[in-house]
Amino acid sequence: VALPEPITALSEALCRLPGIGPRSAERLALHIVQSPADEVRRLAQTLVQAREKVRLCSICGGLTESEPCSICSDARRDASLLCIVERPLDIFALEKSGSFKGLYHVLGGRISPLNGVEPEDLRLAELEARLGRGITEIVVALSTDVEGDATSFYLAKRLAGKGAKVFRLAHGLPAGSGLEFADEVTLSRALEGRREIPA
Amino acid sequence: VALPEPITALSEALCRLPGIGPRSAERLALHIVQSPADEVRRLAQTLVQAREKVRLCSICGGLTESEPCSICSDARRDASLLCIVERPLDIFALEKSGSFKGLYHVLGGRISPLNGVEPEDLRLAELEARLGRGITEIVVALSTDVEGDATSFYLAKRLAGKGAKVFRLAHGLPAGSGLEFADEVTLSRALEGRREIPA
Repeated sequence: VALPEPITALSEALCRLPGIGPRSAERLALHIVQSPADEVRRLAQTLVQAREKVRLCSICGGLTESEPCSICSDARRDASLLCIVERPLDIFALEKSGSFKGLYHVLGGRISPLNGVEPEDLRLAELEARLGRGITEIVVALSTDVEGDATSFYLAKRLAGKGAKVFRLAHGLPAGSGLEFADEVTLSRALEGRREIPA
Repeated sequence: VALPEPITALSEALCRLPGIGPRSAERLALHIVQSPADEVRRLAQTLVQAREKVRLCSICGGLTESEPCSICSDARRDASLLCIVERPLDIFALEKSGSFKGLYHVLGGRISPLNGVEPEDLRLAELEARLGRGITEIVVALSTDVEGDATSFYLAKRLAGKGAKVFRLAHGLPAGSGLEFADEVTLSRALEGRREIPA
């Protein structure tokens, strides 16, 4: 006697979600079949509605309910500044910092030949279409690993001579952390990027 | 600028599931809104169908698609043996062991006055209704913690004199584990229950 088939089917479906292993998928499936039916229907509805209501902004590629998104359509944002990020989520991280008042562009990943991600798989055509419309400064804000750095260099080369200066975020020690938690690459970058303390 | 509302709504709904914290709920919600729409609809359907197709067997209280369940309706099972478990899931664990050929009864929990679970909150009326129909042996297979033990003793007392002998599972060392991993209660129970090795 095995688990009823609808439970294993649900468990397998949940297992395909990121970060959910076979054991937690089974536990979730068992919880769900024993939950009130209207609660389960509501959860299913929330799933479908979230997917239907949220789209990618056709300009920046960020997650949005409206088209274009509230950032792209906000006249108070500085349209001369463009920040390039990997994923839609990165926009919310930067917005939380409250330190960037320009516009965003989601690249959709980084160049990674080993994983089959070539430049043409990224939103580069969309990016180039946005240049020339008064953008004078581009901040490349990708992950600070090998692939992120390689992609940043590629972007700097590709975007050169199109009217905008290309920057990257500073590398160094994270805030609120001690030297003992920093790896050697972070430390050497923090040293390279040292700043004079005004007297 | 915050996350679009349908994403936070989904994230909050997922957060109510067992074992899913706020961070993994947000990650799941972001994954789902970026998945193909038909995949999300299929997942929602699987959720609702699992809940609609799976019910609790009116006899044993186990999870089933048919009514009564395949165990209760199986004439080859030994109807003189009844095993009492806490949760529907426990039936599948015991079935995997392949060592029990009788019928089951799901109690639906254990007595826990601190958590407001009294005997009348358990499936005891349903249990007593099954006695007298040729059941001669009852195996109480509850958790081996304080509440499980207390519930086992309560059951033994309540079921006494109703025509069936009441047993509990053996306590002792788990299979494939060394003494160094056993706590002192397990070890003292393993000593109490020692068996002579036939010469």
